[in-house]
Amino acid sequence: MDDVNFAVLGTGGIGRRTLEVSQHKESLTPVVACDRHGVAVDHEGLDVDELLTATEGNIASEPQSEGETRTDGGAAAVKQTGRDEGVATSRQAEPTETPIDDVIAESEHVDAVLIALPNFEHDFIPRVADRFVEADYEGVLIDVLKRSRVIDMLNERTDSFEESGITFICGAGATPGFLTGAAALAAQSFIEIEEVEIWWGVGLKSGYEDNRGTVREDIAHLPDYDIKTARELSDEEIEEVIQKHDGVLEFHDMEHADDVLLERADICDAEDVTVGGILDVCSDEKPTTTTVRVTGRTFDGETGTNTFQLDDVTSMEANVNGPALGYLKSGVRRNRAGEYGVFGPAELMPGF
Amino acid sequence: MDDVNFAVLGTGGIGRRTLEVSQHKESLTPVVACDRHGVAVDHEGLDVDELLTATEGNIASEPQSEGETRTDGGAAAVKQTGRDEGVATSRQAEPTETPIDDVIAESEHVDAVLIALPNFEHDFIPRVADRFVEADYEGVLIDVLKRSRVIDMLNERTDSFEESGITFICGAGATPGFLTGAAALAAQSFIEIEEVEIWWGVGLKSGYEDNRGTVREDIAHLPDYDIKTARELSDEEIEEVIQKHDGVLEFHDMEHADDVLLERADICDAEDVTVGGILDVCSDEKPTTTTVRVTGRTFDGETGTNTFQLDDVTSMEANVNGPALGYLKSGVRRNRAGEYGVFGPAELMPGF
Repeated sequence: MDDVNFAVLGTGGIGRRTLEVSQHKESLTPVVACDRHGVAVDHEGLDVDELLTATEGNIASEPQSEGETRTDGGAAAVKQTGRDEGVATSRQAEPTETPIDDVIAESEHVDAVLIALPNFEHDFIPRVADRFVEADYEGVLIDVLKRSRVIDMLNERTDSFEESGITFICGAGATPGFLTGAAALAAQSFIEIEEVEIWWGVGLKSGYEDNRGTVREDIAHLPDYDIKTARELSDEEIEEVIQKHDGVLEFHDMEHADDVLLERADICDAEDVTVGGILDVCSDEKPTTTTVRVTGRTFDGETGTNTFQLDDVTSMEANVNGPALGYLKSGVRRNRAGEYGVFGPAELMPGF
Repeated sequence: MDDVNFAVLGTGGIGRRTLEVSQHKESLTPVVACDRHGVAVDHEGLDVDELLTATEGNIASEPQSEGETRTDGGAAAVKQTGRDEGVATSRQAEPTETPIDDVIAESEHVDAVLIALPNFEHDFIPRVADRFVEADYEGVLIDVLKRSRVIDMLNERTDSFEESGITFICGAGATPGFLTGAAALAAQSFIEIEEVEIWWGVGLKSGYEDNRGTVREDIAHLPDYDIKTARELSDEEIEEVIQKHDGVLEFHDMEHADDVLLERADICDAEDVTVGGILDVCSDEKPTTTTVRVTGRTFDGETGTNTFQLDDVTSMEANVNGPALGYLKSGVRRNRAGEYGVFGPAELMPGF
């Protein structure tokens, strides 16, 4: 009952790492992965190592001398095809112009689809979901989105998700996701929550290349930007923003979905949730400790604060992928039990 | 789908507080409560205030003058009947010699039964469960037990639970329960767990009277005692033990079910879990901060420790009852989905 076959839409940083982390659990089998130009399918389980090498972009092997021709079809063949080709360079993949349709075509072999596509238009993920609804997909869709307003768009689709048999888990990365789950847990000492403070630190020097999309999305939270202006920035302009802040970006009162997700789970009012953090792209050390503080009133009249802290050595990637796969499995359980619609991570937690 | 009717077996400290805390959620309705001598039933929901007053023992009202007869049938009538009568003193209750049978007789109106009976023989709760199996009970049974070996006895009953349609949630109080849930959450940064350290502090001055059973059970964890010798201690002997330790009992390497419950949930090996803590019965202030530390290795090769801490002002009662009701609701969800057998709290958490 616990075995789960899943697909990954998008093989950027989050998609790739999810595939990598899934190798550590036998019960999780990736069977489909795609990006814009290619789709890899293996019902018995993808060869993740091969696929990761193909999508890594920065393959650790000696440069070939000019004119040399490699014919062994292995890692070198991947390299020959070049990083921009993505999944299509994998031996397991085919080029495609319709990756989502191709995933949907495999959906009877798929229990859950991780939508690992950050930093698109607000309605991008909802529109991807629409495609699955149109195809009468039955199963889990799960994303790692951050923006509150996307939840509303997904909510509007609740009826069609229920009709199709889709359990949509939204915001299942580090924050929201891991940290709203921690808040839901920490809330259990209390009968009433006064405040939830989510504060994150990310050091991203060596992961910068792999996580440009995430950095761009974070810039959209700075006072002078929004998601539209941030999307339109060239890579050079993003570098300028980062340099202007000496590589360290500090965020307060972010529009992060943590607030609406905690309200959905009946933990507290959205307005009682604050989210902020510090991103350092010049160091792998976290500039501040990721901390969740939940303040509430106990049934016996005391007011206190429970605290959850992540060790500074745990990378953003580690804190996205484990939770995302955990929520994915919980979502499959809900789906198999016939529970359809939209769920946030905190709703998947035990809570009284 | 989320509305839950539940019964409470036992109206000592844990049973009473669970009834009290349940009043803060509309979706939770207590419909049956019993102790050795009485059973209260109301399918529309018990009047918890009245029942708590009846079972409190230390009713806050003026003593009656000798010879005075109260006839108003309210709180004073409760007081006249006296604390030793327990539930039977409630206006909602009937005296009984077969409380468990009486609860079973109501089971079609009950989604879950909280077994709030600490400190009996090891096989007491398993034998209570047998009674429910014999009656073909379909629903959740949930306890707040602490001892590892009871889990084995419950495991042996897995087949009969599955046949009957019982979802048994074991160890769903503060520890195990709340703290194993926290450990399961904190583990999500890691692909491999090296150590889980659970350390609790309890200050129990004003709650001492209500929690004698818990204190007795804790004494059983001291080096010179076991559960049998602790059970045979008179109240006076327990006082002596407490005085000998100046009211502060410190525990290390406790046989707490946290270890087997975390292993069941595939978080880590039982031997990698340590449980200890400090109990102070002379102060309501916690003698140490309740802390869960989970040390593990991330997918990218770092070793770190995530930490969960409860505020010192949160009482043991607050940290038992919220989680117990949360796990109860999760158990009902599993039961309704047709998932039967034995589950620990950590198994109800999202986890990859």
